Amino acid sequence: MQRVAVAAYATSEFRKESKLSLFELGSEPCIEILKKNKIQKHDIDAVLFSTCSTEQYSSNILSEMLGITPRISHRIESLCNSGTNAIVSAYSYISSGLCDSVLVAGAEKATTSANRLIWDISRGSFTYTVCWAALFARAHMRKYGTTEEEMAFVSVVNRKSAEKNPNAIFRSKITISDVMQSKKIVEPIKLLDCSYICDGSSAILLLSEGKAKKVTDNPVWVKGIGQHTNGASLNKATDADLTSNQTTKIAAKMAYKSANISPRDVDVVELHDAFTILEILACEDLGFTRKGKGGKFVNQNELAINPRGGILGCGHPLGATGLAQTAEVAAQLSESAGERQIKGCKTGLIHNLAAAGTSATVIILGV
Amino acid sequence: MQRVAVAAYATSEFRKESKLSLFELGSEPCIEILKKNKIQKHDIDAVLFSTCSTEQYSSNILSEMLGITPRISHRIESLCNSGTNAIVSAYSYISSGLCDSVLVAGAEKATTSANRLIWDISRGSFTYTVCWAALFARAHMRKYGTTEEEMAFVSVVNRKSAEKNPNAIFRSKITISDVMQSKKIVEPIKLLDCSYICDGSSAILLLSEGKAKKVTDNPVWVKGIGQHTNGASLNKATDADLTSNQTTKIAAKMAYKSANISPRDVDVVELHDAFTILEILACEDLGFTRKGKGGKFVNQNELAINPRGGILGCGHPLGATGLAQTAEVAAQLSESAGERQIKGCKTGLIHNLAAAGTSATVIILGV
Repeated sequence: MQRVAVAAYATSEFRKESKLSLFELGSEPCIEILKKNKIQKHDIDAVLFSTCSTEQYSSNILSEMLGITPRISHRIESLCNSGTNAIVSAYSYISSGLCDSVLVAGAEKATTSANRLIWDISRGSFTYTVCWAALFARAHMRKYGTTEEEMAFVSVVNRKSAEKNPNAIFRSKITISDVMQSKKIVEPIKLLDCSYICDGSSAILLLSEGKAKKVTDNPVWVKGIGQHTNGASLNKATDADLTSNQTTKIAAKMAYKSANISPRDVDVVELHDAFTILEILACEDLGFTRKGKGGKFVNQNELAINPRGGILGCGHPLGATGLAQTAEVAAQLSESAGERQIKGCKTGLIHNLAAAGTSATVIILGV
Repeated sequence: MQRVAVAAYATSEFRKESKLSLFELGSEPCIEILKKNKIQKHDIDAVLFSTCSTEQYSSNILSEMLGITPRISHRIESLCNSGTNAIVSAYSYISSGLCDSVLVAGAEKATTSANRLIWDISRGSFTYTVCWAALFARAHMRKYGTTEEEMAFVSVVNRKSAEKNPNAIFRSKITISDVMQSKKIVEPIKLLDCSYICDGSSAILLLSEGKAKKVTDNPVWVKGIGQHTNGASLNKATDADLTSNQTTKIAAKMAYKSANISPRDVDVVELHDAFTILEILACEDLGFTRKGKGGKFVNQNELAINPRGGILGCGHPLGATGLAQTAEVAAQLSESAGERQIKGCKTGLIHNLAAAGTSATVIILGV
């Protein structure tokens, strides 16, 4: 089996609104990768484009704009989980021997409509994504005594990390009091517990072992993959008690097994924090702390969580998020994260999910 | 490397318009596959959904409707080439060892807007797909003396084949005169030179060798794959002289090489005939006849072309077409094509393309 390397990566500045088209946004990080690395356009075997936009043939349009004529080119969409789905697909193209090099790009315009899941009849009127976050938060508070302040802390910490990330949308400090006093959206979720849907893009170049060694001296390797899908509706999202995300647990178990590691081997993690409660759930479901202890765990220093600022600090361009998470972990592992560098990272984990956690992906990278 | 089998397949009745939703359409052939074959829902590792619809998270919705909880689930879109892209992706998931079983479904509503490529500024006002077909037809007529009657013949033959296909939309005989006298759309293309965008769905179950041998006694194997993308715009579609489709030629060469066969080894082919001229071009570009001889070649009996009735006879539900083509070739190779069965088929080829041939896929199956 071919080993697969994350050989290059780039992320654009996430913006509240830009005049750039989906394709201009998508091109930005790809151009950076092509400029900075010893990879030729004609060496790229596949271009996969992760986006929830309704633009058709968008992967081919992007390829043309980049001047790349790949063998394989298509768009991949699975809501917030699109980017990580595209990375795993790219992994399989290389691992199978069908390709040696796959450029995975993700881009989104803030105007992409995905904050309401109107097809989900199990939600009744609760089609806004914030409604399920509120259900989870309330359940966790009831069962484990998790507090609104503990949730607020997640936002404070991730925004603090984002201060050091020039691509993040929110680069100014906030306090727990700021979060607590921000507008209540759906009890107990407040405005600053929520991420912000924005314009943004990110890209990753995955290479076979042979190619990677020509392009970079310190490749980061894909060590483990786990994915699981329970369905699409809210009533498929959780275990009976709404305090954990089943797909994350299954995906994590699979990823740890395939990488032959345990949660305590992870040095750095980018996890899905579209709402503050989700970081608490993820810390438990990924096995970093015991069930119910997530609220306390987020206030620790053992594990580097969301060093780029997470989704709360960076903003959430849906199709780009999984790629930006992976780009950050790859940067940390290759000691290229600049001001944000965490010392001595050897193993990193990316966790992404979509639609109330009805699907989740966990990817483990290592040096 | 894992061998990959097309172990099961089903196609729904293509309809001019139905009251079924995209998901009801998509479920139909999947339910048929699950009913008729020794495959359990919990054995399905991935569900890939090929559609050009703008519905989000559609692969997960489909999975939920089918009662499947796969590891991997996402939508794949590359206009008319979506279905074949999804099949190659499924191949790579299995070949890499990441999955043992992938259900690839394709579905489209006739209302999906894809007959105009409004993003293509190289087309000027010629954004309707029929405009590029007209350019190709006129060029081929000028250079090689191909006639409108030869093109009309393609439609007559494919509709004749469709008579034996209960899933085809056009099951009544037409004559060359009918085609010639049908409404002129864009000189020299007439209404009956064009395929019809419709409702429809098709699905394929791909399995690893180990799984396939448990499910079926006569699996059909994926023997070769070729794909190429030149871009998206009309000005990336062709060689300088507009009489051949470069991406098809490159994809075919790659597929023949990987299957270690030559064009004359092919017994049955489903090729992309969204317009009659495209069948003529494909016969040349796939190497079945010499360049310029396609107009004569379509009137031969050496090679079984489009036995299901092709796109012209069956209708064209974009995301489903590549799957329906593959289902037909698999049926022919496993001697399950009923009234349409061509005797002694050992090797079959599927050819699909998108957007004026800016991308193409060639898949070779064998027993």
